[in-house]
Amino acid sequence: MTILSNFYEDIEVGEHFELGAKTFDADYIKGFAVNYDPQAFHVDEEAAKKSHFGALCASGWQTISTWMRFYVDLNMADRAAKTERGEALPEIGVSPGIEQLKWKRPVYVGDEISYSEVVTAKRPLNSRPGWGLVTSDCLGHNQKGEMVLSFVSKSMVQMRSDSASQS
Amino acid sequence: MTILSNFYEDIEVGEHFELGAKTFDADYIKGFAVNYDPQAFHVDEEAAKKSHFGALCASGWQTISTWMRFYVDLNMADRAAKTERGEALPEIGVSPGIEQLKWKRPVYVGDEISYSEVVTAKRPLNSRPGWGLVTSDCLGHNQKGEMVLSFVSKSMVQMRSDSASQS
Repeated sequence: MTILSNFYEDIEVGEHFELGAKTFDADYIKGFAVNYDPQAFHVDEEAAKKSHFGALCASGWQTISTWMRFYVDLNMADRAAKTERGEALPEIGVSPGIEQLKWKRPVYVGDEISYSEVVTAKRPLNSRPGWGLVTSDCLGHNQKGEMVLSFVSKSMVQMRSDSASQS
Repeated sequence: MTILSNFYEDIEVGEHFELGAKTFDADYIKGFAVNYDPQAFHVDEEAAKKSHFGALCASGWQTISTWMRFYVDLNMADRAAKTERGEALPEIGVSPGIEQLKWKRPVYVGDEISYSEVVTAKRPLNSRPGWGLVTSDCLGHNQKGEMVLSFVSKSMVQMRSDSASQS
């Protein structure tokens, strides 16, 4: 279950979603970096050894884009399952943005990153009847349990039409 | 010139860097989205027409990762030129993070996004002698001059060794 596959009323503050885990191998790290972040420590093992990172590590933009991939996959699977069960689905709202994006530790070759999301707040959107704003902490931890990534996401989430008509 | 190729003392608040421009074609948009954000409106023209976006558009994570690519390219070119001229180069510091990331408008097929950076503040880092913290607004505008992307970046920037030895 994800925020994007649920109506506003069905999301609870404190709810925790495990999104999935990805092992970052050298090909995966370089495959992103050659296109979007070709700094030596993201594309070249030997150069990376001499850098302040000490070894090849992933671009922070890949670490967070991989969070997105798990989030999207889980959401699409949830939406497909609900459609199959004949359940109503919320529209997908636009993202008002991201806050407090932090790369807390490097992600090195062989690190397995587990991605998760915790709902921290929700409120109805006065400016847009029938919709609410859901805030969540989005996290990545490595195989030692150390946090490597955190950011705060805000999502516009549709209310059930019966609720919306009352607002 | 970029923040990453300059010493702290040589960066001026108000300084504006043009990083470059990229036209987002359908292959570029889908090439990222299939790996990191395979929502229908980022990978499928027909499905995108029926979405709230109305047409195929880029993942916000690609819009910002492309900012990074221009930033890195310019930085690497600057550093190479300085090395060739025999000039001293600062170490590259880690990024403490990103704030206020906003995707203000969709980036559609054919949009040309111009990326830029404006230095908004700088201060010495008491916690790390010889280094300063530089804050900048990082922006993307489309060919109509509309802002599509903005975020606030903080960079740790090395001081010249003669300054560092005084701190």
